[in-house]
Amino acid sequence: MAKKRNGAQQGALIVIGGAEDRYEEKFILNHFFNLAGGRRAHIAIIPTASQDERTGGAYQAIFNDFGAHSVNVLPLFRHEDAEEPSAISTLKEATGIFLTGGDQNKILSVLYGTEALHAIVRAHSRGAVVAGTSAGAAALSDPMIAGGTRGSLARSGMAKLAPGLGLARTFIIDQHFHQRERLGRLIYAVILHPSLIGLGVDEDTAAIIHPNDEIEVLGRGTVTIIDGSKLKMFNPASVPDKSPMVFSNMVLHTLTHGGKFSVKTKSLILERRTQGD
Amino acid sequence: MAKKRNGAQQGALIVIGGAEDRYEEKFILNHFFNLAGGRRAHIAIIPTASQDERTGGAYQAIFNDFGAHSVNVLPLFRHEDAEEPSAISTLKEATGIFLTGGDQNKILSVLYGTEALHAIVRAHSRGAVVAGTSAGAAALSDPMIAGGTRGSLARSGMAKLAPGLGLARTFIIDQHFHQRERLGRLIYAVILHPSLIGLGVDEDTAAIIHPNDEIEVLGRGTVTIIDGSKLKMFNPASVPDKSPMVFSNMVLHTLTHGGKFSVKTKSLILERRTQGD
Repeated sequence: MAKKRNGAQQGALIVIGGAEDRYEEKFILNHFFNLAGGRRAHIAIIPTASQDERTGGAYQAIFNDFGAHSVNVLPLFRHEDAEEPSAISTLKEATGIFLTGGDQNKILSVLYGTEALHAIVRAHSRGAVVAGTSAGAAALSDPMIAGGTRGSLARSGMAKLAPGLGLARTFIIDQHFHQRERLGRLIYAVILHPSLIGLGVDEDTAAIIHPNDEIEVLGRGTVTIIDGSKLKMFNPASVPDKSPMVFSNMVLHTLTHGGKFSVKTKSLILERRTQGD
Repeated sequence: MAKKRNGAQQGALIVIGGAEDRYEEKFILNHFFNLAGGRRAHIAIIPTASQDERTGGAYQAIFNDFGAHSVNVLPLFRHEDAEEPSAISTLKEATGIFLTGGDQNKILSVLYGTEALHAIVRAHSRGAVVAGTSAGAAALSDPMIAGGTRGSLARSGMAKLAPGLGLARTFIIDQHFHQRERLGRLIYAVILHPSLIGLGVDEDTAAIIHPNDEIEVLGRGTVTIIDGSKLKMFNPASVPDKSPMVFSNMVLHTLTHGGKFSVKTKSLILERRTQGD
């Protein structure tokens, strides 16, 4: 992470597990707003996953209410929309980009290989914060988990993988994580891609991937981190469809609000207390 | 493991996840029968968990049918029964001891601190095979998981722990593992006892703990091994009841039929093939 282009620092990624609070404290959305610049923020909302402009409008009202400088909903619903100069120009100015929930496969169909996606990647590289919730979170990794089945036991074929937007290059992301029993399919995805870190985010919970390679957890649920870098296994392709995967040395971490994880050391950061006991 | 007393080699432990096949191939029960000596086996059945002599009788019929030399059901249903000289004398001769399913708390109430338990421990030390299924499997560890709640996410208070028989000293055991979604409670138990290895056994599946510290898997399901020896965590006692546990570096292994795991190296044993490709 933390690549620099033209001296600029890459922005944070906010991976939200879906169903974030939009009606009361709006803690996660407010955190995105602040990281995007607060009252100076130029926010672009991408409602592509939901294919419904009202979804974008609901987020627009929230960010306007917080006091953002500008909030635009980009109507990117067909592949052609994602080449429109007006959308590209909005993304060029954006300090925060928000991908809504819906179906991650729609995000890919509309955005893959387009000018809009290039503009999102460039914005992130120059420091814009990119957040995605639910399907919008899944699409941030590459490959992305496009679908799958429930359960805590990893079985062959359990996750359907597809190319993703690739903003979170070190990770493979899953969302609505414990609410929809997705531990098994994320373990399966990591078995297929052991160089990527599995990131399973619960509802109303966010994993913030900071440019310094630290993950910070916000919200009501948990973030599960699955590290397959020490994995021992048989050829996963030899396991018949739906049969349990056989593996050894899969490392599991579970964090809650305030928890921090270092991607470099692959470990929870246990901070020293600054005050006495 | 593998302690020697008077030059004798400790017997294997067979940890069965419950619902093992009793009607068709009876693969796991036949494996127990063979390890107990086959046609020379003296088998003692302990139906204490089920409190029903018919349960013992059903296993007795199976082992008689296999051709065991003797098969006795020990009617240990009250604490006093477990001091009866006739039961102790049967256990002294046993080459295989089988604990049925039911409620592991009954096993403890009846056997704890009795001559019968001492006789089981002595028999195991001199080489008798001890098998337990379902509640009979849970009771083999110390502490044992006496009950708890379902789910893949480890939450505070999720497993109720109680003293167990302690034959499987290095382990803490759970059974009906994926069928009853017990990953969370076993992780919780390992967080409280990180020096013990969590052993989660599916239905119609067995983990054989050999005296040489190898675990071998038999049957239709999976065996999950949870290694907390490298765990980083906050004080687990500070987590409010039912809240998610925060932890890092929990190592997970999943094995299927034929899989072997070394307790010494804490890793899957990847055997070299003896024939060419």
